[in-house]
Amino acid sequence: MFQEEVRVKTGGETDILDISDEVEEVVRKSGIKNGVVHVFVIGSTAAVTTMEYEPGLKEDLPGALERIAPKNIEYKHHLRWGDYNGHSHVRAAIVGPSLSVPVKDGRLVLGTWQQIILIELDVRARNRRVMVTVMGE
Amino acid sequence: MFQEEVRVKTGGETDILDISDEVEEVVRKSGIKNGVVHVFVIGSTAAVTTMEYEPGLKEDLPGALERIAPKNIEYKHHLRWGDYNGHSHVRAAIVGPSLSVPVKDGRLVLGTWQQIILIELDVRARNRRVMVTVMGE
Amino acid sequence: MFQEEVRVKTGGETDILDISDEVEEVVRKSGIKNGVVHVFVIGSTAAVTTMEYEPGLKEDLPGALERIAPKNIEYKHHLRWGDYNGHSHVRAAIVGPSLSVPVKDGRLVLGTWQQIILIELDVRARNRRVMVTVMGE
Repeated sequence: MFQEEVRVKTGGETDILDISDEVEEVVRKSGIKNGVVHVFVIGSTAAVTTMEYEPGLKEDLPGALERIAPKNIEYKHHLRWGDYNGHSHVRAAIVGPSLSVPVKDGRLVLGTWQQIILIELDVRARNRRVMVTVMGE
Repeated sequence: MFQEEVRVKTGGETDILDISDEVEEVVRKSGIKNGVVHVFVIGSTAAVTTMEYEPGLKEDLPGALERIAPKNIEYKHHLRWGDYNGHSHVRAAIVGPSLSVPVKDGRLVLGTWQQIILIELDVRARNRRVMVTVMGE
Repeated sequence: MFQEEVRVKTGGETDILDISDEVEEVVRKSGIKNGVVHVFVIGSTAAVTTMEYEPGLKEDLPGALERIAPKNIEYKHHLRWGDYNGHSHVRAAIVGPSLSVPVKDGRLVLGTWQQIILIELDVRARNRRVMVTVMGE
């Protein structure tokens, strides 16, 4: 078992970052050759999943999130904090903060056009903490 | 490795429970200090994810699930069982039954406003079984 | 820890396969009795989750995916590759490629009407590689 926190800076709402290299670097440091790496974004307005990381999809994915939880409708959440990010919370809960990826021969097992992405769902740029845990042998 | 089943009672359709304390209690019992805890709801009409647990979002999240799988449209699933919970199954498959959260120094690694939630998606109150597995050292 | 790749052949767009038996077979081979099995589909146009595997829901789930990411709207992704599967990528990113299921007494811990499913989201039949990793004791 090896655990390390990675920090990344997002560029604003629905910014999508490819964090595959950061995750693979933790796997390399761990010395673990075969097992699973768990990636978890701390906080309730960001999400982690996989996607082909290319500019078109970086616009298409937010389009779908807008259909699921439109930005400009009323959210009860706004009554509590007045920070107008109810849609951010809802989108984050549905996509989820947690992803596990297999590790084989010390490398991430991903498709050629499959990267680990962090999606900023909050309404502003944020510094994000991602906990990476490698388990195996 | 330590595994224990937790039981919770939901209050009806789209009830959302904060199960962070129950999960952290299993981590405490396990004696495992660093690793990952896996949370899995048994059954095909409930889901597990993270969210800020506050009353506003407990109404906002079901609103988004209604956009994804409206309750009052026709589902082919109804032809099989006649239990009129096709939307429950569809929502549960999309959000998912499985979540892993890092464990560090014997505590769950979560944001301040990030809780582990169980979402009841079935059309009635249910007793839910959640399998919690802690792995690490 | 035990890891094995499983190969399955899908039947075309939004085909849904029950891969529970394939996953349980890897658990059996592993000899691991208690822990977690991780299931990961390699590639960015397929997804893994759980669902009651019955013909009605095999039509209902694609209906919801069509609401999230309709097939016949414009995607920026198409400008890159011209393969017209932008909706496939978006749906796959939202449902996700990764699932973990508890293992107890050598068996998968699933509800009676809960199966592990692979969803083909690409626009054609594909051969899919699924990496299955069993961790525990």
